[in-house]
Amino acid sequence: MSKLLKLREALVANKPNYPLNYAIPEMFNLFGHSSLSILNNGEHLVNPYDFLVDLIDQVLLKHYESHEVASLSQLKEAKIAKKHMGGDWILKSTVYSMMIRTSTTWDHDRNGYVDENNIYHLKETGTFIKTLALLPLLDKMGVDAIYLLPISKFSLKNKKGELGSPYGVSNFFELDPSLADPMVGEALSLDDQFQALVEAAHTLGMRVMIDIIPRTNATESDLIIDHPDWFYWIKSSDLAVYNPPYVDEINDRTVSPTMKYMPTVYKSKKVLEHIRRFQFDPKTQNKELWAKLKKEYARKGGSILELVDKHFGLTIAPAFSDHINDIQPPWTDVTFFRMYLDHPIETSKFLEDKNVAPYILFDTIKSNLYPGHKPNKELWDTLANIIPHYQKTYGIDGARIDMGHALPKELVNQIIKTAREVDPDFAFIAEELNVDNAKFARGLGYNMIIGNGFSMQPHIWEGKLHHFYYKSVDLDCAVFACGETHDTPRLAARDGGQNLSKFLTVMNMFMPNGVPFINSGQEVYERQPMNTGIDPRPNELYMLPADDPFYMKLALFDKFALHYLNHMHNDIPDNLARVKPIRKKYINVITDKKNYIPISFLEGYNPVGFAYEAKDEVLIIVGNANPFDAQHVKIDLRPIRKRFDLNQNEGRILYAMHESGPRMFYEFDENQNPYFFMGAGEVKILVLQKNKSK
Amino acid sequence: MSKLLKLREALVANKPNYPLNYAIPEMFNLFGHSSLSILNNGEHLVNPYDFLVDLIDQVLLKHYESHEVASLSQLKEAKIAKKHMGGDWILKSTVYSMMIRTSTTWDHDRNGYVDENNIYHLKETGTFIKTLALLPLLDKMGVDAIYLLPISKFSLKNKKGELGSPYGVSNFFELDPSLADPMVGEALSLDDQFQALVEAAHTLGMRVMIDIIPRTNATESDLIIDHPDWFYWIKSSDLAVYNPPYVDEINDRTVSPTMKYMPTVYKSKKVLEHIRRFQFDPKTQNKELWAKLKKEYARKGGSILELVDKHFGLTIAPAFSDHINDIQPPWTDVTFFRMYLDHPIETSKFLEDKNVAPYILFDTIKSNLYPGHKPNKELWDTLANIIPHYQKTYGIDGARIDMGHALPKELVNQIIKTAREVDPDFAFIAEELNVDNAKFARGLGYNMIIGNGFSMQPHIWEGKLHHFYYKSVDLDCAVFACGETHDTPRLAARDGGQNLSKFLTVMNMFMPNGVPFINSGQEVYERQPMNTGIDPRPNELYMLPADDPFYMKLALFDKFALHYLNHMHNDIPDNLARVKPIRKKYINVITDKKNYIPISFLEGYNPVGFAYEAKDEVLIIVGNANPFDAQHVKIDLRPIRKRFDLNQNEGRILYAMHESGPRMFYEFDENQNPYFFMGAGEVKILVLQKNKSK
Repeated sequence: MSKLLKLREALVANKPNYPLNYAIPEMFNLFGHSSLSILNNGEHLVNPYDFLVDLIDQVLLKHYESHEVASLSQLKEAKIAKKHMGGDWILKSTVYSMMIRTSTTWDHDRNGYVDENNIYHLKETGTFIKTLALLPLLDKMGVDAIYLLPISKFSLKNKKGELGSPYGVSNFFELDPSLADPMVGEALSLDDQFQALVEAAHTLGMRVMIDIIPRTNATESDLIIDHPDWFYWIKSSDLAVYNPPYVDEINDRTVSPTMKYMPTVYKSKKVLEHIRRFQFDPKTQNKELWAKLKKEYARKGGSILELVDKHFGLTIAPAFSDHINDIQPPWTDVTFFRMYLDHPIETSKFLEDKNVAPYILFDTIKSNLYPGHKPNKELWDTLANIIPHYQKTYGIDGARIDMGHALPKELVNQIIKTAREVDPDFAFIAEELNVDNAKFARGLGYNMIIGNGFSMQPHIWEGKLHHFYYKSVDLDCAVFACGETHDTPRLAARDGGQNLSKFLTVMNMFMPNGVPFINSGQEVYERQPMNTGIDPRPNELYMLPADDPFYMKLALFDKFALHYLNHMHNDIPDNLARVKPIRKKYINVITDKKNYIPISFLEGYNPVGFAYEAKDEVLIIVGNANPFDAQHVKIDLRPIRKRFDLNQNEGRILYAMHESGPRMFYEFDENQNPYFFMGAGEVKILVLQKNKSK
Repeated sequence: MSKLLKLREALVANKPNYPLNYAIPEMFNLFGHSSLSILNNGEHLVNPYDFLVDLIDQVLLKHYESHEVASLSQLKEAKIAKKHMGGDWILKSTVYSMMIRTSTTWDHDRNGYVDENNIYHLKETGTFIKTLALLPLLDKMGVDAIYLLPISKFSLKNKKGELGSPYGVSNFFELDPSLADPMVGEALSLDDQFQALVEAAHTLGMRVMIDIIPRTNATESDLIIDHPDWFYWIKSSDLAVYNPPYVDEINDRTVSPTMKYMPTVYKSKKVLEHIRRFQFDPKTQNKELWAKLKKEYARKGGSILELVDKHFGLTIAPAFSDHINDIQPPWTDVTFFRMYLDHPIETSKFLEDKNVAPYILFDTIKSNLYPGHKPNKELWDTLANIIPHYQKTYGIDGARIDMGHALPKELVNQIIKTAREVDPDFAFIAEELNVDNAKFARGLGYNMIIGNGFSMQPHIWEGKLHHFYYKSVDLDCAVFACGETHDTPRLAARDGGQNLSKFLTVMNMFMPNGVPFINSGQEVYERQPMNTGIDPRPNELYMLPADDPFYMKLALFDKFALHYLNHMHNDIPDNLARVKPIRKKYINVITDKKNYIPISFLEGYNPVGFAYEAKDEVLIIVGNANPFDAQHVKIDLRPIRKRFDLNQNEGRILYAMHESGPRMFYEFDENQNPYFFMGAGEVKILVLQKNKSK
């Protein structure tokens, strides 16, 4: 039975027969549910059960067809031509990145706290079910692919922040119980709930992608009990002194672990000390004791790590950065999998004693560069089966592979091949920030790489935006056209603020060889980053006023509600709604590199623009990359006019950020070059007709 | 049975078994009920049933003794010495003036509106029951007499504002149903509910006074059906042209209707036209038709006025100001009672036709100045029985008589005598603003008059505050020591703002021959007046920001919640809490005129102060009447030192607005005059010890 219908049934059945005083931000109610009250601050008071039922009826069941669990690709594009790589639908998508736990967090009972169990015993952090409320907003903005940060069960051992990081996965094959919604009670299993969300997205033509994390795992992992040998171990008593060894002999800070450094690394006293700390896994050390421990665990449950500590004095060694002399502290909540059952082929020669216990070091981390002879096949099979589980159980459409760059090439191949056997049109995104590896990634079967947009786009004054916009077209696979991610500062909190954010968000919809990517919260000018992982300023944690309830909170670890009540919250969504039909009309033009035409300017400081050849016209997107000042901009049309016979003195403006609707356009100079006055950070889109005679 | 216990029972029984998301301002929870949540804005989330039960248990039942319904005076001071006037307890009281409907208004469900029936089917305007929550605040401030604006049933015909004015009474012997609280359901009648409030106040030693309105009545009054001859009538078709006649022949505007003007008045063409409009009452016109109408009314109910209009084409003549050529428009919702059944003795001689129908005119309004031969005894008896009804049913302790100055002296005597027969210690306040009439009012049996404090105190720069503070001691009865009333601008919205308000509120606690009077809202620096009746500025209606939910609203007519969340809301209550024990200790000293000693100053611009002789010491209260600037102040102690042998060079500061606690004081100049630095609007209280030797 359709999980959406089952959800509807559960909501009707579970609706309490007393009044609920329950608030949601206006942004959750874009489909026009008739609220009990609309508050001046932008909150709507609704009965959440009625609200969701209305959403299902009015929005989701309108174009509803019931299907078996399947990806949208399998439903719509079952036949993939053999010579084309499956999954390339991602190249025409607009991606919205979100964390289920965060994006629908709200203080629904307005008691001043985000409760996990509020006055109505409902959950105020995000859930799969509550995420349905965001779909009309995403649809309005033209989003057709939802990319979910990890949703698998994660460990709360040594958790970061108030809630812990979802990157510390402890069980790949279970969803995290925190994402369950008490509104549906026992009527829908957690699996059902996620399935209902995927089904809901699919009815709106939106694909759903997940983030899988095959390289690391929680130190408190469900896999330990059956596979202690897949992990690295140290004495529990050494945990306090355990650290990434700092190689004084290498003067550089934070260098990649290329082979030239390895002799030095293996001679370093600190490294040798570090390696000596590692111990053989408990099962290898004492089979009988391990069997006894397993029985105790089966009987009593509890923390497996505590049990191993009690019986063996051992614990899992935490992970750390794969870069030498990186100053990041160890990642206390996660560890690495042992990708090979022996030491690395190339570096084991530096080991005095070849029989040392398996150890974590820059080379063993970078198992793609430093393979061993004996792949950990059983582990690899497990990892390769994660995605098929999500495909078969929930019908997901694609995945990003976290730290794929540190996985053996053969394992990546296996993961991609296994998934594409289930769904030939399954999309893969490589966590590859280095655009030099675009071709290699595409060769591995990835449809696209993440790229470095988020670190290039905001740095307009250093020329990085122009470099990124104009050079990415030469890459062998697409990158994300994005100015922020869950790891970076927020655009609205950068120099240029809201103008910068709106400018980039609109412009990115038309970037050649770019896949538009919106980071949840970006659309409401959220200022607080979700994490301070990449490019943080010294004050990155303090982007909110000190009296904000989420001051100093990071969504990746803490309870965090996006600032949906920002008085400008409609600004970006409204602008995206206006460019959505334009992007849709020209999607095949924009996403085919051969239509791209570079443009140059005759007037204006640092404007930026793209042109595309369409059938009967040329589409031009121009942006004033200065988020502070308005300026005059004139496009140099001569090179384009040389190629096409274009209408001399009229065009049509399809969109201008500061105008209300399309209009004809007649401002051309004596050389037939169009000129505009452009507001700070303004984007304009115009089309010039080709003359029919030719 | 005690209504308080009955109330407690009803609250326990009626408490719903589901969660309530119900907000109250912090000011309602001064007794420390443990809230479900405390919000950053100062609201507390509580279950209102638990909250009230806790209030009853923790605050009200602590010193509880059960009594028959009775005034506090009857309970505590049964024996009033015959030569003393009863009711003089008011002279030692601190009065809090409030309107039940307004002072506990709150948007409890926070849906953005003050609902009469909110999400929980509870009332968000004020009720008798909710008023219990204010008692701890009043107690904290030292209030021991609550003066209630009218609570009788009023007419909604031609109502002013959203809710209508409680001054348009339609039935003296019923409470207004809007003050009933749905929390108690049917368990307590509306009478029970008011009785519970009076009982609650009495347990805290607070007296309760009401406002009675014997001169005017709603045009749609419950009395019409039985007593059409108590009212003035005109043709319904004349209502549109009906107006107070403007006497062009008198050049002055707004003059009192003294005898010297009356010949002119009665010659005026407009007046004659006005008099001719009046008609005999319908019953007098046609007894049979009236009998038929009565039957129809008994059967169908509905609007009595509409019925009279249908059958007789008559309607009640609206009231207007008793001043000649007052520019106030007619008071469309009320009319006057016919105090005499014949025309005025003194002015009827001007009537050409003595048989004209009874008419409203300046002389018939001012029936104390212009009596007839035939008092309307039946009406007088009815009016004199209002207070005994409230005494016997609810146990009230005193009353103000609205427009008493326009009542026949004999009627006032009758009203006061009848009430004092029930309770010899019943207090009466005259609505007498003219202090020249103080002696006359006292002669009538009033304990005090309102006086003109509210129009004198704020006008410091015109010398009126000093005049009021220093001259009122000579009056033959006490006046209210107050800077605002429900009819005037708010002190916090006057020039001088919060400093002015705090200064006067504290200073008034020690004014000679003054009874401290706090106008509900004054203690939280409310800026919006309740009515624009007296002394309004042109922008009086606009004291709130345009985005305030109560912008342009007047509590007397509209839904209005006081701004209890004002971030300074604790400022005045905290200061009053500090002076409360001082006032209490010296109450007999302060309220006995013979202890009062005027003081003068040697330094400082416009300081103000009072001194009182106590047994072993002299109490001095000094105020910097400048709410904008701090200044040095030196008291001229020489005249006082001549009378008393005071300690030369030390005193004790009991209270200083900007100091945390009492301290010794040694700042005296070479002539033994004390000097201080006083903040803007600061008040200091000090005592100087008399030397024991003498």
